[in-house]
Amino acid sequence: MAISLQGMIERAARCNPNGECLRYQESSRSWLQVKNRIASLAGALKRLKLNESDRVAILSLNCSNYYEAMFAIPWAGCCAVPLNTRWVLAENEYAMKDADVRAVFFDDAFTEQVRLMQASLQNLCSAIYIGDKECPEWALSMEELIAEHKAIPASDRGGDDMAGIFYTGGTTGFPKGVMQSHRAIWASAMSALPEFRLQRESRYLHAAPMFHMADLAGSMSTTLTCSTHVIVQSFDPAKVLKLIQSERITHTLIVPAMIKMLLNHPDACNTDVSSLEMILYGASPMPAATLQQCMDMWPNVGLVQAYGQTELAPIATLLPMADHVKGGDLLRSAGRPSSISDIRCVREDGSDCDLGEAGEVIVRGPQTMIGYWNKPDQTEKALRDGWVYTGDAGYFSETGHLYIVDRVKDMVVTGGENVFTTEVENAVMSHNAVQDVAVIGIPSEQWGEAVHAIVILKPEATVSEEEIISHCRDRIAGYKLPKSITFRTEPLPLSGAGKVLKTELRKIYWQGQERQVN
Amino acid sequence: MAISLQGMIERAARCNPNGECLRYQESSRSWLQVKNRIASLAGALKRLKLNESDRVAILSLNCSNYYEAMFAIPWAGCCAVPLNTRWVLAENEYAMKDADVRAVFFDDAFTEQVRLMQASLQNLCSAIYIGDKECPEWALSMEELIAEHKAIPASDRGGDDMAGIFYTGGTTGFPKGVMQSHRAIWASAMSALPEFRLQRESRYLHAAPMFHMADLAGSMSTTLTCSTHVIVQSFDPAKVLKLIQSERITHTLIVPAMIKMLLNHPDACNTDVSSLEMILYGASPMPAATLQQCMDMWPNVGLVQAYGQTELAPIATLLPMADHVKGGDLLRSAGRPSSISDIRCVREDGSDCDLGEAGEVIVRGPQTMIGYWNKPDQTEKALRDGWVYTGDAGYFSETGHLYIVDRVKDMVVTGGENVFTTEVENAVMSHNAVQDVAVIGIPSEQWGEAVHAIVILKPEATVSEEEIISHCRDRIAGYKLPKSITFRTEPLPLSGAGKVLKTELRKIYWQGQERQVN
Repeated sequence: MAISLQGMIERAARCNPNGECLRYQESSRSWLQVKNRIASLAGALKRLKLNESDRVAILSLNCSNYYEAMFAIPWAGCCAVPLNTRWVLAENEYAMKDADVRAVFFDDAFTEQVRLMQASLQNLCSAIYIGDKECPEWALSMEELIAEHKAIPASDRGGDDMAGIFYTGGTTGFPKGVMQSHRAIWASAMSALPEFRLQRESRYLHAAPMFHMADLAGSMSTTLTCSTHVIVQSFDPAKVLKLIQSERITHTLIVPAMIKMLLNHPDACNTDVSSLEMILYGASPMPAATLQQCMDMWPNVGLVQAYGQTELAPIATLLPMADHVKGGDLLRSAGRPSSISDIRCVREDGSDCDLGEAGEVIVRGPQTMIGYWNKPDQTEKALRDGWVYTGDAGYFSETGHLYIVDRVKDMVVTGGENVFTTEVENAVMSHNAVQDVAVIGIPSEQWGEAVHAIVILKPEATVSEEEIISHCRDRIAGYKLPKSITFRTEPLPLSGAGKVLKTELRKIYWQGQERQVN
Repeated sequence: MAISLQGMIERAARCNPNGECLRYQESSRSWLQVKNRIASLAGALKRLKLNESDRVAILSLNCSNYYEAMFAIPWAGCCAVPLNTRWVLAENEYAMKDADVRAVFFDDAFTEQVRLMQASLQNLCSAIYIGDKECPEWALSMEELIAEHKAIPASDRGGDDMAGIFYTGGTTGFPKGVMQSHRAIWASAMSALPEFRLQRESRYLHAAPMFHMADLAGSMSTTLTCSTHVIVQSFDPAKVLKLIQSERITHTLIVPAMIKMLLNHPDACNTDVSSLEMILYGASPMPAATLQQCMDMWPNVGLVQAYGQTELAPIATLLPMADHVKGGDLLRSAGRPSSISDIRCVREDGSDCDLGEAGEVIVRGPQTMIGYWNKPDQTEKALRDGWVYTGDAGYFSETGHLYIVDRVKDMVVTGGENVFTTEVENAVMSHNAVQDVAVIGIPSEQWGEAVHAIVILKPEATVSEEEIISHCRDRIAGYKLPKSITFRTEPLPLSGAGKVLKTELRKIYWQGQERQVN
């Protein structure tokens, strides 16, 4: 019996029909209700003439309907394309066009974006409104679709079949669509369970955005255990603290920047976190000081780290609760390979590194991506003989713990989001006054790393930092914008092969600090 | 990347090369050593002209070499057939012939059986001796094969491909070979991990026989976490207690009859079991009194129950540690569906039972068998639309716990082994003096159930209980032999359809006792 996302819902509804599945704002839905809504919504998708494996996007802040849309799509045999809510129109339009999306689910935050895209994208036939206000005239209402359509049997797609396309920043300056199978998403969630320790009575808070592969892993684990999903529309530290207490949250997944905001919030000390058993964190470097602060303030909350990437659906290693010891050396580690991950650190010639010797981290397992959508050349580079080449450099210790020391791919991780510097450089370069630019990550208390641009202007040109940033604003998402710019007149330092030596450029910013890159 | 048994070994050897993999008697082997031995042994199998998917049997008591043989077979692309060490020559010969086995691994306990089989089975080309004494002249030595052959790359079979054939007693009187895929065996082990809670530092004791699917699940979980396998040749309560203390065992899997023997052994009180974190039990009914006794004597040892069958590789439900509360109602339950299991209780017309209403338990998931080897008719009955029909009757409670109330298949579970009564009845009927027979399970302090035969002799025939049992001894394994016989003269009670009413026959033996059948 092939594993499938829709099968996970069928199973959960059978195991725990009357248990609370979704809790959002004042509303609550049982597993059986959610399954029935999904099956009817899938019936509606079929009537919209969507064919097997057609792509259907979701562009929405977190809500109950997001979860249902995410499963109605595979229930109907289609592929989900969850879009980045922080991207600007141009970026999401690029992804929608690239994936040849036929229908899109959206909420109030994206009414304007979707209206514009419907005009520009010929193949985008249907827009389905999942918000809780008034449905725009030009869109279909999810509630009406559910009410008007009968439940259909779940599609028998599954296993190695593509379940979704997940867009990430691209090394070449364009977003890449990571194709993930039903099996990969399921296997990654299975591998998290022994450390994440969800039980049926657990209450998982979707604090991170639901489009993100990291939250998807937490979401799928919660689905495997038929536990309760509690959803907050977007991350707000005060709201999240309040929900942890009022909803008796037991588990959540957050990125380090979010943990910091929670711990530093004035309400943190007065919040009752006694229900909280486990925080799974990952997706960006976690400063040791933040970990210590968390263990000091919330000594009874277990911490588990996950390291991976979208191409691994997304988990490769886990650092279990027991390894989170105050002042312990392991806190710098990304953990050990999860039970499904075979991991090597390899030299440029492909041979295995010795213990302690850093090389590119490559990962093999049932969670590896099918490839990049429509990008055979990049797939060939990133996926060789079943191994995903992560672009990160790391080494194994004697105890089998992986330590990440650098990123082979030129990337800044800021607040849990990957920013490929080429994308930012392209945006900056499109300004008339700019002659050359290099973008690097510099240390940031709040974001782990901040995007910084070093700009060389054309002779006699003058332009301010603000002007360049504002010029980029229509081209790339807010989190990709340079947070700061320095101007220089001498040429950028180049390697023998003519590549900009970013290690040189980074040096002065990182003096006396270790750049944490796991 | 498809999951495979050989891939699990490659991964473990990479994750934990120097960690202790196998410990047996005085010897110890690291994961890297074991991987290299497996890869060389697989090289030898290839040189023996074994082709892709050829069947290779193992007939041996527990030992380190058993584990290596079990993985060398799939490494070479072949299918493993672990044979029941309690079966007599005729039974194992039947299985070997049925599966068309080409080679067999054996130890000292089975030298005679294998020598006879080599004479009678034309297609059995090679016999490989894995014992620690002298290799018979007519056999190959595993140690020599390893020394003489180079390591070969692991086969790329995996996923849905058949990994092995596991023989169980058959409802029709002949053993059935359950075909299991790489994925099924892997998925079942993955589903046990969250409750079984193995860590890399865990030490798992193979106390149950390694041919048994139950021990295979524990073994595979241990392989997933790259922990240590400690092996005892066969179950002996004094030895097992000694090993738990001296080897600092943390986890083990045993059947209820074994737990009883451990708890009642005079050494039990003086054994240091402080290392023991978890006992996984299953495969036969566990009397509540035994559970209570265990919780009283070893209050710090966690208990986890698994229910399932070979057709489910073998886990369907798990009753976690937290549900093992003294005097608790849940102790009668088989637990909740594991994270991969979709379970229904269905009426004869196929419709779903209500909560509390008993029906046949059917299970769907990535762990379901491919089917019965060479038995399409029986496969069609047991596997319908992806659902395995377990032959057990059960119901779900409000809390989603499964309770097993009866076996639809006519079967006795004695000391963790399934005995299909037809097999025993066939053996008894083959005695000249017997006119009719019915075999049932009756309560037994030691075995949970004991095999009991009710015999009607031919007119004027006389024969003793001992004579009939001795007559059966060459035909069926010792554990299948009737432990007791009653003679009767009146005909057996029949149903309208002419079937023997075993419920009637059982009644007088089970008066005042609940027949536990999970």
